[in-house]
Amino acid sequence: MTIDEVIEFLGESDNVSILTHRSPDGDTLGCGFALCGYLRNCGKKANVLNADGFPARFSFLYEGYEKQEFEEKCVIAVDIATESLLGAELSDYSDKIDLCIDHHISNTGYAKKTFCDPDASAACLVLYEILKKAGAHIDSDIAKCLYTGIATDTGCFKFQNTTPKAHIAAAELMEYGIGTERLNRLLFDIKSKGRIKAEQFAVSKMEFFYGDTLAIIAVTNEMINEYGIDRTELDGFASIPIQVEGVKIGMTVKESDKEENTFKISVRTDGVDASAFCSLFGGGGHIRASGCSICGSLDEVKKKLIEAAKDFV
Amino acid sequence: MTIDEVIEFLGESDNVSILTHRSPDGDTLGCGFALCGYLRNCGKKANVLNADGFPARFSFLYEGYEKQEFEEKCVIAVDIATESLLGAELSDYSDKIDLCIDHHISNTGYAKKTFCDPDASAACLVLYEILKKAGAHIDSDIAKCLYTGIATDTGCFKFQNTTPKAHIAAAELMEYGIGTERLNRLLFDIKSKGRIKAEQFAVSKMEFFYGDTLAIIAVTNEMINEYGIDRTELDGFASIPIQVEGVKIGMTVKESDKEENTFKISVRTDGVDASAFCSLFGGGGHIRASGCSICGSLDEVKKKLIEAAKDFV
Repeated sequence: MTIDEVIEFLGESDNVSILTHRSPDGDTLGCGFALCGYLRNCGKKANVLNADGFPARFSFLYEGYEKQEFEEKCVIAVDIATESLLGAELSDYSDKIDLCIDHHISNTGYAKKTFCDPDASAACLVLYEILKKAGAHIDSDIAKCLYTGIATDTGCFKFQNTTPKAHIAAAELMEYGIGTERLNRLLFDIKSKGRIKAEQFAVSKMEFFYGDTLAIIAVTNEMINEYGIDRTELDGFASIPIQVEGVKIGMTVKESDKEENTFKISVRTDGVDASAFCSLFGGGGHIRASGCSICGSLDEVKKKLIEAAKDFV
Repeated sequence: MTIDEVIEFLGESDNVSILTHRSPDGDTLGCGFALCGYLRNCGKKANVLNADGFPARFSFLYEGYEKQEFEEKCVIAVDIATESLLGAELSDYSDKIDLCIDHHISNTGYAKKTFCDPDASAACLVLYEILKKAGAHIDSDIAKCLYTGIATDTGCFKFQNTTPKAHIAAAELMEYGIGTERLNRLLFDIKSKGRIKAEQFAVSKMEFFYGDTLAIIAVTNEMINEYGIDRTELDGFASIPIQVEGVKIGMTVKESDKEENTFKISVRTDGVDASAFCSLFGGGGHIRASGCSICGSLDEVKKKLIEAAKDFV
């Protein structure tokens, strides 16, 4: 599908349900609400749907948004690479999606029509290009949504997927007076009390091996319960050990709360093949970020990991 | 001084000593080494000087740099707002500076000639504009230096001083293949083991008041020594309490290692006038970041602060 065909499609669409992916992030929500705002500004009816609801931390994206009543005539998915990411609540839509706007190279082409730019840092960047080409009126609410998607998917312009185009879009979107300092504070700085406590707990468990080139944070369910940590607050702490200067392999070893006697290992590396390391234990992933599962006691699992890491650090 | 006059000045200069500010950061060093690289590429002699030496964490800015021997004919200061920031080692230069390139609105005009753009996010952005206007050949080493200054002074495009121009410069500088992902990891993600330990210590001391709207981290010299914390690793931890969700006033209260019975208080706020708060104790600063000193025991000092904060949260 060409960008002009997308513009034509949007021009003809009305009564649109916009689908965003489960466990929504700033990009899928930003793209969804930006598209919804654009369509409503054009006098059309549109809603944004999500299987898990809209998280409070992104409330600034949907201030004043109210669901409209209409008979659905068109379904558009944004930032959704595969049908499975619709989530249970929206799974009935899987064969009814008219258009998908995305940036994942892994997009499976599940929609009737797909406009996907895998070189774009974010789905919001794809939508921004469409709106600019369409000569759309972009207001500050739409600009705020688009900026949020670009900023969050690039880790505030820090990750490898940050392109010159992402910076230029940010420069242009700032001109709408969207208060990026406040947005960035909400998106990147503020942490819940529980998160702060969980991070402190995780860091206190960090151990170093092989001249501080291997760092491991290992936690059992007993430790988590004893310390009063909310398990969900430990998500994303896989990035902590690799932040330490000189560490080549950073691991988190977390006891499963579902499978007995099983530990989930997340591996992050600097100059080491994380995928090759995890494949030793039947796991895999990317060159810098991989994972695996190992059965045993914490001591057994740690011993296996430390021994295996010897040839990698 | 106009930008054309700066270009003319640089064109006529040779045997240049470039001064950077004490306790050097990414902007002064990036600007210094970018200017040095440009002058050397033009076949001129130039050195970068710093009162405190070049920190190892910025070593990628001066890879391959070697000091040149020459009879100094020109002195240029970069990113230095006042003479006092030269530091003791370079204080003899204070009345010998021919040109200052800067972006601080507080620049005191101590140099014979000054080119200062207070709207620029970084001194590196000022230099970049000069080099572009001069039609200078920018190589990847110069681009890396300029990007570093812009990224560090804006907190990786997060702070209030981030302008559309800063994003556009980043977009242009990325095109030189400077490996921004690796740079950003070095600049923003990696922490020393001592820093991690100090942060954990600081967070473990955090207390909350007034329904979690006031957060205080208070530490004495005894605590610091007992826990084996390097004092210098506690720099910058003033930003930790204000990161907690719902906190309106975040304070760090640190016992002085120079003045007996004295605590240095750093205050960061969200929607509260930090300067007005600190003025109650004879201090001051900016609306969101201020400081003051209070004499007394830790308990006395904390009690005063907590009582005073009651009217602000």
